[in-house]
Amino acid sequence: MKTYRDILKWGDKRETAIDEGTINVIKDKFGYTESELKQKHLYGNQEVKLEHQIKLDKAILNQFTEIVGTENIETDDFSRAVHSYGKYYADLLKLRKGDVPTPPDAVIYPRSENDIIKVLEICNKKRIAITPFGGQSSVTRGVETPKGGISLDLTKHLNKVLEVNEVNSTSTVQAGMFGPAFEDYLNNFGAKYSCGHFPQSFEYSTVGGWVAAKGAGQASTGYGKIEHMVLSMKVVTPSGIIDTKTYPASAQGWDLHQTFIGSEGTLGIITEVTMKIRKYRPENTSHASFIFKNFDSAVKAMRTVMQSGIGVPHLFRISDPEETEIAFKTKNFEGTFADKFLNVMGYKSTERCLMFVAVEGSKSYTNQVLSSIKKITKKNKAFSLGASPTKRWLEQRYSSAYLRDPLMDLGIMTDTLETAVVWDKLIPIWTAVREYLKTREKTVVMVHISHVYENGANLYFTFLSPMKKGDELNEYTEYHKGIVDTIQKNNGSLSHHHGVGRTLAPWMENELGKESLNLMQAIKDHLDPNGIMNPGNTLGLKP
Amino acid sequence: MKTYRDILKWGDKRETAIDEGTINVIKDKFGYTESELKQKHLYGNQEVKLEHQIKLDKAILNQFTEIVGTENIETDDFSRAVHSYGKYYADLLKLRKGDVPTPPDAVIYPRSENDIIKVLEICNKKRIAITPFGGQSSVTRGVETPKGGISLDLTKHLNKVLEVNEVNSTSTVQAGMFGPAFEDYLNNFGAKYSCGHFPQSFEYSTVGGWVAAKGAGQASTGYGKIEHMVLSMKVVTPSGIIDTKTYPASAQGWDLHQTFIGSEGTLGIITEVTMKIRKYRPENTSHASFIFKNFDSAVKAMRTVMQSGIGVPHLFRISDPEETEIAFKTKNFEGTFADKFLNVMGYKSTERCLMFVAVEGSKSYTNQVLSSIKKITKKNKAFSLGASPTKRWLEQRYSSAYLRDPLMDLGIMTDTLETAVVWDKLIPIWTAVREYLKTREKTVVMVHISHVYENGANLYFTFLSPMKKGDELNEYTEYHKGIVDTIQKNNGSLSHHHGVGRTLAPWMENELGKESLNLMQAIKDHLDPNGIMNPGNTLGLKP
Repeated sequence: MKTYRDILKWGDKRETAIDEGTINVIKDKFGYTESELKQKHLYGNQEVKLEHQIKLDKAILNQFTEIVGTENIETDDFSRAVHSYGKYYADLLKLRKGDVPTPPDAVIYPRSENDIIKVLEICNKKRIAITPFGGQSSVTRGVETPKGGISLDLTKHLNKVLEVNEVNSTSTVQAGMFGPAFEDYLNNFGAKYSCGHFPQSFEYSTVGGWVAAKGAGQASTGYGKIEHMVLSMKVVTPSGIIDTKTYPASAQGWDLHQTFIGSEGTLGIITEVTMKIRKYRPENTSHASFIFKNFDSAVKAMRTVMQSGIGVPHLFRISDPEETEIAFKTKNFEGTFADKFLNVMGYKSTERCLMFVAVEGSKSYTNQVLSSIKKITKKNKAFSLGASPTKRWLEQRYSSAYLRDPLMDLGIMTDTLETAVVWDKLIPIWTAVREYLKTREKTVVMVHISHVYENGANLYFTFLSPMKKGDELNEYTEYHKGIVDTIQKNNGSLSHHHGVGRTLAPWMENELGKESLNLMQAIKDHLDPNGIMNPGNTLGLKP
Repeated sequence: MKTYRDILKWGDKRETAIDEGTINVIKDKFGYTESELKQKHLYGNQEVKLEHQIKLDKAILNQFTEIVGTENIETDDFSRAVHSYGKYYADLLKLRKGDVPTPPDAVIYPRSENDIIKVLEICNKKRIAITPFGGQSSVTRGVETPKGGISLDLTKHLNKVLEVNEVNSTSTVQAGMFGPAFEDYLNNFGAKYSCGHFPQSFEYSTVGGWVAAKGAGQASTGYGKIEHMVLSMKVVTPSGIIDTKTYPASAQGWDLHQTFIGSEGTLGIITEVTMKIRKYRPENTSHASFIFKNFDSAVKAMRTVMQSGIGVPHLFRISDPEETEIAFKTKNFEGTFADKFLNVMGYKSTERCLMFVAVEGSKSYTNQVLSSIKKITKKNKAFSLGASPTKRWLEQRYSSAYLRDPLMDLGIMTDTLETAVVWDKLIPIWTAVREYLKTREKTVVMVHISHVYENGANLYFTFLSPMKKGDELNEYTEYHKGIVDTIQKNNGSLSHHHGVGRTLAPWMENELGKESLNLMQAIKDHLDPNGIMNPGNTLGLKP
């Protein structure tokens, strides 16, 4: 029997138990009793059974089957339910409740670009919706199928490295390849390489997803976001195939790559990408961590680093005071001798901020950058905590996402939102969004900066708050709306790297202006005249 | 009396005499006699008189005059002739011959964005062509007006810095501001800044032109091309105003900035841009120069530098053997003791290659990068020539362009073409294009690399060859076609930073593929449904 719970589980049934430190935080912050700590709220243990009837007719399904073979098309309830949602908090709530009103009619696993062309041709002719599907870690309702149709899952077959070019320092890779497989391949190829792109979703995201949703990795301060890494690509659209050439840069009209990076499946299916790769030399990496007296001085130090022409670190993070406090609590640091020492030194529990740094590259570069950073942090009254906190953080860098399901079992609402701002808007938006989040009683709000630029940075908000049981979805939706409104009012971008999907679509016109959204729509209408590509308001586009 | 010669002159009547070193090269390579060295071939000394009749009717001209004032509209022959061409070799030939068949009907100098909106509205309603005009240094026939209409010159009024934000490290600047004025403003503002963008055309190019034609500066290896510097912009299009917000990065759909960067006036008028700026600290800059035994080893060293994670230099150049030879000849280095010494050491006159390096940033960064580069060049058997050759090159960095007119006076055809390639195609395309260029008798071909990336670099070809008198334009056009064909056949981009204009338009479909060009056309048709923006095949677009 396959249950909704099975869909919640990550990858190969991965579930993480909540660690003792986090349990203590929950007790402390929410006043949970022992029995509350054992609850399995909306556990989702019921069998997956869809009420939704497949709307595609048999003859068409047969055509698809002829193209890809019976083993590469699925119409059973479980497969369709799996392909109905990503990992957005509201998705998880709906799955727990068994609420799947608009699953795809069929899931197709194309074996090749040629399969994709043929499937798309039929969809276009018959006006069947088609939505590309990768690692399923979308937190923006980006893979939902409100118009049913086909969920096109690229992970089963289009998951190979096609070329590593060591002279050019590039790799051509199929869109359905998962991050770890790609990185592993590169780490073991020739002189050893790295993709340099490690989003929080790394373990359950694909190269195509990175590009489609315009993601950023944890080393983005050094290597850039995905839009800075893609050199060429192939996209199958209803109007034809876009197939670009690989140049280090060019000036032959405007850059069409940037029309597809961030297109979130609305324009076509990205089938392969040629990306920059970098030397893999973990032995050269310098690590450091610092504690600052307050958020202001940590932000100032970070900005100084980015604007001083000293080179850039690859990983560069600050946790705000509350995130720092929680980090210390969960690591059982609170009350230790070291904690007391820091407090005495003026690094007070409620104000201090952690900074993590890792620099990659040649030994001379990593040494130089790190020593320059140390000088800047010292000037801003930071205290060095050495390399190990950053190393430890890196070891468990992807794990926090897996806590979400066990937290929801305990009736805890938890979600993350992110935005990008220029430096002079950073403290005001941090203050405003925190203030809004705190209007909800007993809410833990953790904020960090994790992608840094000369001109500004992102802010990443994580919140935990006990659910209002019975009204979980509505209360979340309303709360979420207030957060995004506050971000937009305070000069933050709608997203820095999560993307827009359907979650943020309602804010797009206000964000971009009518003319820009019209331009996006015109591009969409040209490439996808029948509106079959990931339809249903993705990015604020019609239909 | 105003002559065509006055149009050829740069800026405030700047004309450069040919230096003795170059004269010697001309004697040596082309066998010029003393009397040939005194010729003034196609000197263009005739008065500017246009046969072309203004096609706009009086009533409409009056409407324009009402908008901008009489002092901001010109319809005299000289002004219209000035606004008929950029600085493409064929443009100069035509001007010298007094061949101006399609000048604009009027030149308008808008005082404000509001003026632009009003002028554009009339143009759109009446189907009058409108072509933005900046520093006039286009080498791609980008400012020509084959359909007449309005040349919209932004340099007279829209030439101010609107904001320098020292916290965000950004500046908002109007499109018609010239490079030197912008840089000078930044150098003297607050803690002192630099725009970091120094194209060869710097002295006669505008911010709007940089963005419209997707330029690159001489420090691009460190600071990136213009498309890496623009954070937001305002564009007045026939369909409305695109006005984007300033973020350090974002993921809110695809990046529309990149639709306007490189649009070459075909989509709208860029009125202002917010750009990254950098600290101005020339005192920190490290300079070095090296001589390599051959082009292969110089290229290998350059590639190693870019792929080693040592940081990047800002200026990074190699001259190929022939360019190195000419540089040494013109500097009267040939035959000196130092020259003999280098030859004895194995740096042979016909094979050796010069490399220039300058690194900007903090002192520790510039030291570290330079010392890492020195190690890499040493491994590749280069000999260090110290800082001064690079410093001397920087002092006269913009001057070589001003030689073109005096060279043409001597009946010498001279032009430059450039392309970007990935590393493993670099030596083959360098070989192939040189081979093609050398099919023309007595042709000097100088090649350098001046914009460098992890994944490849540009190649910049300069050639000099005696004209076939009487058939100057045809012989050039045919020769030029062969060069571009050879570039395209050998995996080079049509352009790395000159842009496309009308010169390279015929190659665009083959370059991008039909689908990509169709997409560009659809974008054009949406924003400019009446086809009034810089019409006449710019970028290969209709009409």
